[in-house]
Amino acid sequence: MSYLGDTNNLCWYMVPQMRDAILRLHNVVGNAVTKDKFLVLGTGSSQLYQALLYALSPSESSHRPINVVAAAPYYSEYKDATDILQSRLFQWTGDAALYDKDEPYIEVVTSPNNPDGTLRVPVVNSGVEGKIIYDLAYYWPQYTPITDQLDHDVMVFTFSKCTGHAGSRIGWAFVKDIEVAKKMIRFVQLNSIGVSRESQIRAAKMIGVICDGYKNLKSIESDHLFFDYSKRLMKERWEKFKGAIEKSKVFTLTKYPTSYCHFNKDLSEQYPAFAWLKCLEGIKDGESYLEKLKIRTRGGGRFGVDAKYVRVSMIGTEDEFIELCTRLSNAKRE
Amino acid sequence: MSYLGDTNNLCWYMVPQMRDAILRLHNVVGNAVTKDKFLVLGTGSSQLYQALLYALSPSESSHRPINVVAAAPYYSEYKDATDILQSRLFQWTGDAALYDKDEPYIEVVTSPNNPDGTLRVPVVNSGVEGKIIYDLAYYWPQYTPITDQLDHDVMVFTFSKCTGHAGSRIGWAFVKDIEVAKKMIRFVQLNSIGVSRESQIRAAKMIGVICDGYKNLKSIESDHLFFDYSKRLMKERWEKFKGAIEKSKVFTLTKYPTSYCHFNKDLSEQYPAFAWLKCLEGIKDGESYLEKLKIRTRGGGRFGVDAKYVRVSMIGTEDEFIELCTRLSNAKRE
Repeated sequence: MSYLGDTNNLCWYMVPQMRDAILRLHNVVGNAVTKDKFLVLGTGSSQLYQALLYALSPSESSHRPINVVAAAPYYSEYKDATDILQSRLFQWTGDAALYDKDEPYIEVVTSPNNPDGTLRVPVVNSGVEGKIIYDLAYYWPQYTPITDQLDHDVMVFTFSKCTGHAGSRIGWAFVKDIEVAKKMIRFVQLNSIGVSRESQIRAAKMIGVICDGYKNLKSIESDHLFFDYSKRLMKERWEKFKGAIEKSKVFTLTKYPTSYCHFNKDLSEQYPAFAWLKCLEGIKDGESYLEKLKIRTRGGGRFGVDAKYVRVSMIGTEDEFIELCTRLSNAKRE
Repeated sequence: MSYLGDTNNLCWYMVPQMRDAILRLHNVVGNAVTKDKFLVLGTGSSQLYQALLYALSPSESSHRPINVVAAAPYYSEYKDATDILQSRLFQWTGDAALYDKDEPYIEVVTSPNNPDGTLRVPVVNSGVEGKIIYDLAYYWPQYTPITDQLDHDVMVFTFSKCTGHAGSRIGWAFVKDIEVAKKMIRFVQLNSIGVSRESQIRAAKMIGVICDGYKNLKSIESDHLFFDYSKRLMKERWEKFKGAIEKSKVFTLTKYPTSYCHFNKDLSEQYPAFAWLKCLEGIKDGESYLEKLKIRTRGGGRFGVDAKYVRVSMIGTEDEFIELCTRLSNAKRE
């Protein structure tokens, strides 16, 4: 079994059925414009993040490292993923909202955002032009209304958050500029000589089954359709979770707007994959506080904000989730 | 399907059946000592190469980049894989045989070597202590006699060259130092959050079938055993290939010693995955010369040596290989 997936495609390690499945999925969901863009496959979106930093950085070695920013609270791994190899091409510079240099930059816009689920737009206000990476890992109907068919120059998605198959390590990016796409593919080549063939074939098959469901809409009860089923599950969890939070009187939750979803054709709230809790006065370190209640969370410090914030996963197993709600509702002010 | 493969293992993204299969395979083949070492899984050995550069580099940022060297001719991708992100931690420094700095270094010892199939030992002669990465991608019985059960601090293998399943992107390293292993795992986490679960499960199954064959040795004709079958194929190809080379009178071939193979329990030649040709006088650029004969090769310049050398793949499909021999035997001096 060779490294090659499709020698006719710029992204030579991607098999045709993977490409077709991804295009079909976006066509069904309507969350991204795929026309006139290059599709680059990655070993999860993590690898594509690094490939994009490489591809979007100025290649002249005389250049200073380009600044990489994201509005706080930002995904906790961006900083380390950016700085791990101490590259001369790019460097993590922190909160995009505080960026005030007249230097080139890359802004990562995660929307819906990890950790707090909010919908995001670029926030840097600089005299120089920046490059934007849209990390759209959570822009799927079970988490958020699909309000727009997004059409940005660089958009990253991942199978992990679309269907929950994190272990498959399949991510993809739509890229407008062929030179950016070529550099990304070169990065993936040097980094891992492509992407697991087994994962591609399995992911393509699963995406096919999901899309078939929507094609045969009339013969299948809509509740058995993947995104409808997943959304109902997320909605039920959020209702249960909000009940537990109210009972505890220790936390406040991010508020989300209601929007029209073009996919579900109804008004809907957001049901993010993570809950973002703010601890009330008296609790300075939310992560430690919840650790005592035997709840594992990730504290605000990791996301570039105050330690009174914590991120809680909403997408664990059903047993874990029920236990989480029970323990949360027992929380009392210290 | 979660990111986690085995929370009881340091290498948390590796599933237990993958670990067991790898250990069993080395136990059957006898090419490496696996006891008292940490097993780190990667998305092919390419990812592990980068993980190792990161893990073996001094972490103090005050430090100069550590020099990375390999004896020429060296694997053509090492240079770019080392320098792609212009890391401040490490830098490609070229031919290990020419290394004369009194500075820390990492030497990559590829044995059998890609491109030339020779068996290698470290060659740097420096006043300071170096770190050695043994890239043992081709240290399997179909390519070379298994002369020793190797017992180095850092040894890298890949499924790609063991069974030919390059598309699965499964590589592994045995590492003696737990701190090195931990840093590698951290790298893989930030780089791709682990390794494809589908590939792990399929590779484990295939390795199991291969090992079962040797367990049931008496009930199976030895020619149907994986390594015996593959070795016979390689031997036949090399005989055909040598015939074509002799007929052409344009090239000379690397000579390989005969050694005792502890796995096959016989004296055997080497049958490398690549042939390394030296063009005779009058042909200065072997790659261009062979391009005219419609033979795609990789020229010596890519491997850090003279352009009169070329690397030819011996492990293409059977049709390709036969056509290669036909075209080669038609080669004439210009």
